[in-house]
Amino acid sequence: MHDHIIFDEAAGVLDLLDQRLLPGAEERLICRNVADVILAIKTLAVRGAPAIGVAAAYGCVLASAEAADDSELCGLLNALERARPTAVNLSWAIGRMRRLLPQAGGPRSLRQKFLAEARAIHAEDIAACRAIGRHGSVLISDGDCVLTHCNAGALATGGYGTALGVIRAAFEDGKKISVIADETRPLLQGARLTAYELARLGIPASIACDSACAFLMSRGKVQKVIVGADRIAANGDTANKIGTFGVAIIAKRFGIPFYVAAPLSTVDFSLADGSQIPVEAREEEEVALINDRRIAPHGVAAINFAFDVTPAELVCGIITEKGILRPPYPESLAIAGRETAG
Amino acid sequence: MHDHIIFDEAAGVLDLLDQRLLPGAEERLICRNVADVILAIKTLAVRGAPAIGVAAAYGCVLASAEAADDSELCGLLNALERARPTAVNLSWAIGRMRRLLPQAGGPRSLRQKFLAEARAIHAEDIAACRAIGRHGSVLISDGDCVLTHCNAGALATGGYGTALGVIRAAFEDGKKISVIADETRPLLQGARLTAYELARLGIPASIACDSACAFLMSRGKVQKVIVGADRIAANGDTANKIGTFGVAIIAKRFGIPFYVAAPLSTVDFSLADGSQIPVEAREEEEVALINDRRIAPHGVAAINFAFDVTPAELVCGIITEKGILRPPYPESLAIAGRETAG
Repeated sequence: MHDHIIFDEAAGVLDLLDQRLLPGAEERLICRNVADVILAIKTLAVRGAPAIGVAAAYGCVLASAEAADDSELCGLLNALERARPTAVNLSWAIGRMRRLLPQAGGPRSLRQKFLAEARAIHAEDIAACRAIGRHGSVLISDGDCVLTHCNAGALATGGYGTALGVIRAAFEDGKKISVIADETRPLLQGARLTAYELARLGIPASIACDSACAFLMSRGKVQKVIVGADRIAANGDTANKIGTFGVAIIAKRFGIPFYVAAPLSTVDFSLADGSQIPVEAREEEEVALINDRRIAPHGVAAINFAFDVTPAELVCGIITEKGILRPPYPESLAIAGRETAG
Repeated sequence: MHDHIIFDEAAGVLDLLDQRLLPGAEERLICRNVADVILAIKTLAVRGAPAIGVAAAYGCVLASAEAADDSELCGLLNALERARPTAVNLSWAIGRMRRLLPQAGGPRSLRQKFLAEARAIHAEDIAACRAIGRHGSVLISDGDCVLTHCNAGALATGGYGTALGVIRAAFEDGKKISVIADETRPLLQGARLTAYELARLGIPASIACDSACAFLMSRGKVQKVIVGADRIAANGDTANKIGTFGVAIIAKRFGIPFYVAAPLSTVDFSLADGSQIPVEAREEEEVALINDRRIAPHGVAAINFAFDVTPAELVCGIITEKGILRPPYPESLAIAGRETAG
């Protein structure tokens, strides 16, 4: 599943697999301009922090073709950056593109430079995921059942996946493992997307309601937890899909190791801790309606924060492309970050 | 909402509000025989431990009219008792009916005795809920936001409710409170039923995905947790809707009091602890399909345990019709149980 994000250079469009329709239908969504890309990101046609970064980088390529002048280009890039607030990979990717602006020649040259950089971001993300998988595989033992929350698979990244990257690397290493995918309300990325990816890979998988976590752990059904991340603060506090924090608390009670798998592009070194991570609040209807049918009576509000923030103390390790980082994270993240920048 | 379970003596039928259709439609389900009642209980047209007890008691009245002889009656009562395994109120209510058998005269006399006993069980349950509400109200402070899981309201009982009984008593006492109802996947009893009851009562309420609990508690949005129970072991371990255990673990982390509200008919003194409580596993389709639409790909299993068991150590108090019981529960439950029996 490397092809869920394709930049079609000849047509000058960004061609996405529409994740909102999975697993029922595999349809493509063609983004012809920046507004299309913003809408795709906002509506979760493309989602997952690293995948958002890759899509936004290609969105910059569309911006460079669309903008009449530097000022307009600047405005388009800013709008793209504001599409969603939590995943730092979005601003990280656009930041990389912005750094090319001073050296740009004419519009045609800029467009070529942007495209090369976007392709580099995409390729680097896939390589980072494969490295994450290789490093993380050692954490998984033969016979383990691994619980994951939301989708941190190929669909959430440039390809291969972060949390699912670790799981599939362990599976490719011949370990007999199984996976429980939390269904991940409200938008069911676990039941729809993680289960879809695992089924295609032939990895034994079950879905469970998010609320089943404590019972399953209490009955010895889970040996490891691995999740992705949308933003990691400099101290290791980790924003990820709503529900992750609860899984981490429950795992701690049962002594089950809880790991975060993410590329270093997900680390926001400008934030000292997780309290500063902006948590997106989304529309009530995402909770109150399922398949366009209202589940709750009118007049009752629906709370819909898309993320929560798991404190670093609950994280046993952060699996990155540079290896498995261990506490204290302020030090281990800083060292890994310097290596990457260098 | 005292009228969601009505025994129509003239027609000789049990007339239930079909809870599967709420809040979208308010339709009645007429049970003409024991098989109808069993189906209503199995399919959750009537659910909630005390409500199941009341419905089963009326089901015994239908059995007494339906059975040709004592042996057939015995078979019908046994079948009714097996409708669902976890809520002990079911066997408790049928046990009360069985105790009338030796003193019964002819079939007509038995039917009258059964009906009187069923009506007594129903009335006692409503009275117990009101007492639970009165006792529990003191635990709620002005300004509190109370989180509850699943539905432990009028619909789950003979009327008035257990956990919601406490909440509405506090509200009736003039306290300014609000409620967060966990939506309670897979069957959404929180979003559908608790929200419906709270809206009708005019109590400010929001629904939230089950997975939002840790985030909401971490941001100071929840001051108390009150839930119902399906079976309480002699040591206070409490079986309740899947997800309750996780809420209790998370509440403990944040120092938020976690209370169970239940009539003493929910206590199973024959079980030393929660490990012996049978936990119902239900059909995969309840998780894998929403509104008849499959959310997960074919070939992926769906885990569907209907309950979990919260250890007594996480329960700050058990609110019963005899008052608020505190640890150590083996003693406080035993004393309250003896008072009730006496």
